[in-house]
Amino acid sequence: MTAHPPGRHDASVFIRACRGEDHEHVPVWFMRQAGRALPEYRAVREQHAFEEVVHTPELAAEVTLQPVRRYGVDAAILFSDIVTPVQALGIGVEIKPGVGPVVERPLRSEGDLARLRPLEAEEDLGFVLDTVSILVDQLDVPLIGFAGAPFTLASYLVEGGPSKSYTRTKAMMFSQEPLWHDLMRRLSDITLASLRAQVGRGASAVQLFDSWAGALAPADYARYVLPHSRRILEGLADLGVPRIHFGVNTGELLGAMADAGADVVGVDWRVPLEQARRRIPDGVAFQGNLEPAVALAPWELVEERVRDVLDRAGGRVDHVFNLGHGVLPETDPDVLARVVDLVHREGRVDTTAPSVATDGG
Amino acid sequence: MTAHPPGRHDASVFIRACRGEDHEHVPVWFMRQAGRALPEYRAVREQHAFEEVVHTPELAAEVTLQPVRRYGVDAAILFSDIVTPVQALGIGVEIKPGVGPVVERPLRSEGDLARLRPLEAEEDLGFVLDTVSILVDQLDVPLIGFAGAPFTLASYLVEGGPSKSYTRTKAMMFSQEPLWHDLMRRLSDITLASLRAQVGRGASAVQLFDSWAGALAPADYARYVLPHSRRILEGLADLGVPRIHFGVNTGELLGAMADAGADVVGVDWRVPLEQARRRIPDGVAFQGNLEPAVALAPWELVEERVRDVLDRAGGRVDHVFNLGHGVLPETDPDVLARVVDLVHREGRVDTTAPSVATDGG
Repeated sequence: MTAHPPGRHDASVFIRACRGEDHEHVPVWFMRQAGRALPEYRAVREQHAFEEVVHTPELAAEVTLQPVRRYGVDAAILFSDIVTPVQALGIGVEIKPGVGPVVERPLRSEGDLARLRPLEAEEDLGFVLDTVSILVDQLDVPLIGFAGAPFTLASYLVEGGPSKSYTRTKAMMFSQEPLWHDLMRRLSDITLASLRAQVGRGASAVQLFDSWAGALAPADYARYVLPHSRRILEGLADLGVPRIHFGVNTGELLGAMADAGADVVGVDWRVPLEQARRRIPDGVAFQGNLEPAVALAPWELVEERVRDVLDRAGGRVDHVFNLGHGVLPETDPDVLARVVDLVHREGRVDTTAPSVATDGG
Repeated sequence: MTAHPPGRHDASVFIRACRGEDHEHVPVWFMRQAGRALPEYRAVREQHAFEEVVHTPELAAEVTLQPVRRYGVDAAILFSDIVTPVQALGIGVEIKPGVGPVVERPLRSEGDLARLRPLEAEEDLGFVLDTVSILVDQLDVPLIGFAGAPFTLASYLVEGGPSKSYTRTKAMMFSQEPLWHDLMRRLSDITLASLRAQVGRGASAVQLFDSWAGALAPADYARYVLPHSRRILEGLADLGVPRIHFGVNTGELLGAMADAGADVVGVDWRVPLEQARRRIPDGVAFQGNLEPAVALAPWELVEERVRDVLDRAGGRVDHVFNLGHGVLPETDPDVLARVVDLVHREGRVDTTAPSVATDGG
């Protein structure tokens, strides 16, 4: 394999949009673009369990490439799981189909935290990094590195699995603040090590998923979460790759997530994009936000709603088109292929529109 | 039993706050104040299944009264379940402990809709109305009638149970719009009939729970849901009782939910209350919004956060204190009792603060 510096895609529409630099057309990719909506993914999964795919570089690379081939999206995202790094440390986590990550012995006390030793990325996550290497070698578009943010990771580790109310997690946060921050610091270091190593192997950007941070009131996010997410995002600054930060239900947190050090803030479908834009400071780009279930509608409605997202984005150079959350497994891939075509055809960048470039951000 | 007109609590702090009329102190009640946080509720449940409690007026009345006795809250809310009216129509719905409502044969086609015949409240929901009658006879505070809004009901009926993504519900909404509106109209009529009958028996206010409407983008809420919620809320207008409307994750829908005909809009804990207030038109009161998990924290933090909610509410006469969602089962009831005392002691109404009365709403 040849060396691929993270900056080699600097001229791509995706990287230029993340940086608010002028470019040809609005870039588009889809969260969870690799996955069960694709028959070629399901074919791989008929032969290999989910965990096996994640842990086998050739398979993880293959399913990462599938949506790039099929849709012609402007970026690939590493196929992995948010719990993969903690799993690699020997925390017993099983990803149960239809359920999500289930933690054998949840972390709830000071003694439990010792199990979260520092991550040695090359040794612990060699299979992930080898996946990255294969991908940067084969891809013509930027590869987005992938990690779960500390709050979301903590929620699985403390609850022991997916949760509706995050009661134990919040109880620890509110009642055992030093323990909470210790847990969050350890998870931040693990996440940072994983992302730095992915960029070291040639990932051109990273997305930090704080999927469940939207369960928090803004004041709690600011006090219990933001300092840790900032530690990660600022810890990536010297690498010079765009840092995307996203979670669902984060309408009231968009400004804070930018403030944590994101270059691009992802917006879920609940917030009209022009309103989201007002909550994100100038100088920070935005990504989103088609309602994922709209892809299940007749094409006329899909088309109308894609255009609506583009309209609300206002032709700004710092917009990356995406869904407001991951592709639903029930989605017809042909619809997403048409969405990509439509965004490429009609998503013109208006260099006279307010943007990071012209707003002085 | 004597006759109890719905207006007999017009002088209560709760009703006056709902109407933006001057009163002594900020009223407080808690969503799901009756329930598993209370040992006296758990004692009832040791003897009787959930469904049995809901269907037995003496038991439903008893568990409704428990939190009023213990906490001294300013309103009671009918103990019932949002699926009770459709269950009463013979739609096979089982409320599974720890899961939620599970529908035996989900409604997914035009043929299925015939199963949703009109509700004859006196016959179909006699046990609910008898509960109301017992309660208005025994309560010294207003009773809030209870119903689930059509979108939330539809989500259970179409999905067949609780859902994370509401994929089938949204697919029907987007792809079979006439069927969707037919379903929503039937559910609206059922809900309206139930609420009117509750008020007929003396309920002093109603709360329409659209718990899951926050899963929708504002444009979809406006097109597929709001007209039906409006049909219910406007259909109650002649009764003259305050109409409260609430759902979680509705930060972007607060204005629309007011527009649907609410007198009071409930706010979840994600939206700082002074910001929520700006999204709710003058003339409409607001309710909320302490993070329910804060009740699991040490008292110093609870106290700080209760005061923060009161501060953000700004002493307005149209504020009703509540949690941002239901009481968590893990909550220590003593903490909630102290919250009530604190709100009563410190939640002074500032008659010089902007309010529905002074803003000309």
